[in-house]
Amino acid sequence: MGLTRKGQATRERIVSAASRLMLEQGVARTTIEDIQNAAQVSPSQLYHYFPGKHALVLAVIDHQTGQVMDVQHQGLDQLDSFPALKSWRDLMVGILTKVQCAGGCPLGLLASDLAEADPVARVQLANAFAMWEGLLREGLEQMQERGELSKTADAEELALAMLAAVQGGLLLSQVRRDPKPLVTAVDTMIAHLRTLAA
Amino acid sequence: MGLTRKGQATRERIVSAASRLMLEQGVARTTIEDIQNAAQVSPSQLYHYFPGKHALVLAVIDHQTGQVMDVQHQGLDQLDSFPALKSWRDLMVGILTKVQCAGGCPLGLLASDLAEADPVARVQLANAFAMWEGLLREGLEQMQERGELSKTADAEELALAMLAAVQGGLLLSQVRRDPKPLVTAVDTMIAHLRTLAA
Repeated sequence: MGLTRKGQATRERIVSAASRLMLEQGVARTTIEDIQNAAQVSPSQLYHYFPGKHALVLAVIDHQTGQVMDVQHQGLDQLDSFPALKSWRDLMVGILTKVQCAGGCPLGLLASDLAEADPVARVQLANAFAMWEGLLREGLEQMQERGELSKTADAEELALAMLAAVQGGLLLSQVRRDPKPLVTAVDTMIAHLRTLAA
Repeated sequence: MGLTRKGQATRERIVSAASRLMLEQGVARTTIEDIQNAAQVSPSQLYHYFPGKHALVLAVIDHQTGQVMDVQHQGLDQLDSFPALKSWRDLMVGILTKVQCAGGCPLGLLASDLAEADPVARVQLANAFAMWEGLLREGLEQMQERGELSKTADAEELALAMLAAVQGGLLLSQVRRDPKPLVTAVDTMIAHLRTLAA
């Protein structure tokens, strides 16, 4: 896009404000005016970067995908062992506990909010989840290479089931305000992986 | 509440219309006027049954909890075996396929929509999920009684992990418009239960 450094900073401020508001209130409850006020930009500044709310929604999905992937990489970069899976699980539980289980997964929240209302956003979110699933799958494949997980295990299906456990666990933890659903869902999947240890 | 039969029918028509609209558009995008129009009632008729939107939201959660529990009972009433778990899984996949994976789980959707915005709705949804989890736990306990599942297995944790698999699987299936995430998540949990067979 060739933005100046200042332009880039303004754009980021708008996207951060839009992310925060859309995740807190939901996309429908968030107006362009809310975002302008929160980001402290004028209407013309905002429209310079984003032609409308839909463009902002897509930018928010991108932004949140980046944030989630950063956290996943932090926990998963060295994922080639059961202790690494345990650290990754602890990282997610730690983040959840810090916010008293409020908020849920930003990608899960946006998915639930937008899957029916916005087909373009839905596809973008499907791609984000596919990236996440790929990261989990690569980790499991590394464990297979290293002989820690049976070569007959289906790394693709296990990665998808693990991602579902994370998403379902986070949603139930958010509703119950209790980390137990996430902990139980992920630990059960790790226990299942252990039954498939080479 | 002591409604007449006609009053009961009107109330149900309002709740059905509110359910459909809130699940299709999200709670925030649904106005009282939308619901009046869809249910073909006057403002005074609507306010006779529901003092405002919040009362409607709670009635919709009740309504959807009843619907989900009906389906779960249909699949789970005789849950005391692996074949019964398989039938329950087939029932959910069948429903999902019939709607081309659109819509997601009504309770999951409402949870994601309302967990932060409405603390009363959040607690009501937590209770709905607890009922669902209880149904799954009772089934697993019956399998333990019948000697099909090890007595050392933690039925409570396994039920919670299964519910998380269902919720995460449904969300990912909705986003991908593909039954595979639900199928894989639930099948992986069933495979895990098989490793705990007595």
